[in-house]
Amino acid sequence: MTDFAAVDIIRAKRDGQVLSDAQIDWVVDAYTRGVVADEQMSALAMAILLRGMTPAEIARWTAAMIASGERLDLSSVTRPTADKHSTGGVGDKITLPLTPLVAACGAAVPQLSGRGLGHTGGTLDKLESIAGWQATISNEAFKRQLDEVGAVICAAGEGLAPADRKLYALRDVTGTVEAIPLIASSIMSKKIAEGTGALVLDVKVGSGAFMKDLATARELASTMVRLGQDSGVNTIALLTDMSTPLGRAVGNAVEVAESVEVLAGGGPADVVELTLALAREMLAAAGVDADPAKVLESGAAMDTWRRMIRAQGGDPSAALPVARENEVVRATRDGVVTAVDAYGIGVAAWRLGAGRARKEDPVSFGAGVLLKVKPGDRVTAGDVLFELRTDEPARIPAARDVATDAVIVGDAAPALTPLVLDRIA
Amino acid sequence: MTDFAAVDIIRAKRDGQVLSDAQIDWVVDAYTRGVVADEQMSALAMAILLRGMTPAEIARWTAAMIASGERLDLSSVTRPTADKHSTGGVGDKITLPLTPLVAACGAAVPQLSGRGLGHTGGTLDKLESIAGWQATISNEAFKRQLDEVGAVICAAGEGLAPADRKLYALRDVTGTVEAIPLIASSIMSKKIAEGTGALVLDVKVGSGAFMKDLATARELASTMVRLGQDSGVNTIALLTDMSTPLGRAVGNAVEVAESVEVLAGGGPADVVELTLALAREMLAAAGVDADPAKVLESGAAMDTWRRMIRAQGGDPSAALPVARENEVVRATRDGVVTAVDAYGIGVAAWRLGAGRARKEDPVSFGAGVLLKVKPGDRVTAGDVLFELRTDEPARIPAARDVATDAVIVGDAAPALTPLVLDRIA
Repeated sequence: MTDFAAVDIIRAKRDGQVLSDAQIDWVVDAYTRGVVADEQMSALAMAILLRGMTPAEIARWTAAMIASGERLDLSSVTRPTADKHSTGGVGDKITLPLTPLVAACGAAVPQLSGRGLGHTGGTLDKLESIAGWQATISNEAFKRQLDEVGAVICAAGEGLAPADRKLYALRDVTGTVEAIPLIASSIMSKKIAEGTGALVLDVKVGSGAFMKDLATARELASTMVRLGQDSGVNTIALLTDMSTPLGRAVGNAVEVAESVEVLAGGGPADVVELTLALAREMLAAAGVDADPAKVLESGAAMDTWRRMIRAQGGDPSAALPVARENEVVRATRDGVVTAVDAYGIGVAAWRLGAGRARKEDPVSFGAGVLLKVKPGDRVTAGDVLFELRTDEPARIPAARDVATDAVIVGDAAPALTPLVLDRIA
Repeated sequence: MTDFAAVDIIRAKRDGQVLSDAQIDWVVDAYTRGVVADEQMSALAMAILLRGMTPAEIARWTAAMIASGERLDLSSVTRPTADKHSTGGVGDKITLPLTPLVAACGAAVPQLSGRGLGHTGGTLDKLESIAGWQATISNEAFKRQLDEVGAVICAAGEGLAPADRKLYALRDVTGTVEAIPLIASSIMSKKIAEGTGALVLDVKVGSGAFMKDLATARELASTMVRLGQDSGVNTIALLTDMSTPLGRAVGNAVEVAESVEVLAGGGPADVVELTLALAREMLAAAGVDADPAKVLESGAAMDTWRRMIRAQGGDPSAALPVARENEVVRATRDGVVTAVDAYGIGVAAWRLGAGRARKEDPVSFGAGVLLKVKPGDRVTAGDVLFELRTDEPARIPAARDVATDAVIVGDAAPALTPLVLDRIA
């Protein structure tokens, strides 16, 4: 590998130049090995954020991150593989019902997930509210479970894209998270390295999402779809609304409970709708001919859920943790709910203890917000709008303030936006 | 002092916002204390480089850097004080004859200087080729020498603008040197903290300088002049040509020898011209009525030089180090010298050992380039164009290549540019 000076690569990107393949390969590898220092990589990340990257640079950067670690080989798995990745939203528990549903339809779903940071929750945090459930499993157990159950949700191993692990932690503290080339390569390097054959991206748009506007979300989605396709992963993206929370439960155990309701054939309409929309895309991308609505109705997805939880030591029948304190907030007037702002509800859940401020913080499993209304619902003064749950009563006032501002009762029914805004293939 | 999160300040500048006084005060102080990490400051420096700063932000940043350390009080010095700062060029030894000349005219010159990094030499490196001379002196000795001799060239103390010391080292390895707000505040924080009453800036323009074009150099000069004036330092700037080396000697001991020639009434015309131009500006800015040309002719500047060197332990009569090896390069055709490129000659001297690649490297005192021709000179095939000097013969080929490319012999006499290109007050 050619040797470069980090400062020359930083200056090239700073001045708007296109980095060569050799420069990208070197800088990603040298950063992983500690030859390029954190302060050099953060300056480069800021230059990338402000100057951008060409599609070819993003593809090479992604390839270099994959090459920094191991790449899983799922060729021994007999079923077609399909995975889903969401860019993160408030109340987004879709992975929980979706993974067993798609597995019950005949595909294998290798879901390597993360923990939450900030106001959007992490899938692993939610599942850890189930007694006994273990996020970490060996590569061998992972493949065996994929074959036998068809569904695995677990923590990504340390060996997968270690460059991304190091870079993600750095971006978080240096104001360089919001760079599309770095977001796209971070997500796709892990998904390509995990070895899935098909991938459906759920790119969230709106106040509770990372991407606030449709144009930026579309750019990110297109970039990721291209990266996946170019690496032989059959990738499509849905752009979905995150201006209002998904479902009625925002937290950890409360989201597991809502997911189980969906698997039991009930649950909020928007959670069911998005679960089925993503399942159809995953099955089509994996070449599996099945109707997920029928499979959900049959109870097969619930069976797979229980087997999936048990395979990782969890007890699917155990009672979920419940927070020690709760408080309800009621409507002060008659009217119609014009908005339930996703960001505000996300922050409220975070303040109640459902999320973490630093990555080493624990989360409270029982904490969260339970919405009793959705946009368009009519309410009468005195009706409960939402319930706050926490283990620490001192957390309630600050959460109540932001949640109260997030739920607006007005006079005219709002125009309801569709859940799926666009599809990019 | 209000407490901020570093990442919020980085994001604000990244998004093109103007930082508040409180944000700037906090981030500079917190960085000096190690609360803001190197990787955060480098991301901020890159954002500043690409997004810029308003004059008010630059002024506040400079003030914060000054406040990070001590500020010298030169009020006990009986003479008016005047200093000069050059942004650095090839063969730029002007500080050496200028400091004793201005002192001999009646002002006191508190020259806190640095060492060289890259292809432009450092004043301290040059003076250290004089046997016994010490760059480091106490604040008390500094003031005493200013009063008694009127001239001090020494290393800036550790206590002066420590934020700048730390930031400069960081910028050097993170591709963030070339930011006008950071260059201006780095230079001016040290000059204001050193306590001089008047300051003349020599902003170099051309291939051998940091600033390659006149517009950027003018912007930097104006920014620094405003910073100085606003802090009560009577500041003016000359923009001077650095497309060709100053004088005929480029190195360390060879530049000292050339400076002594100037003090003895000889030396290259361009070195004499710039020394006198800067001396006139310094004396005018300090309110001293004297004719430096007459003082130079009288020999008084040479007397002050000898006293200045002796005051810091040096022997002004000692023989200067001479490199072990030398090689001459001759013209291969008849013609006229159309260009002597400053950058190429600077790199050649650096390759011969006159400069350093890392700040902990030693320099070779005897190494360098001696130019036998200047642009516009007529030459005949076989005439010596330049002489290379080094302690390590293995260094010669690479230096010869770049120096040979830098000295062009053509047919038509070049249009000669004036040495002083502009004056900004």
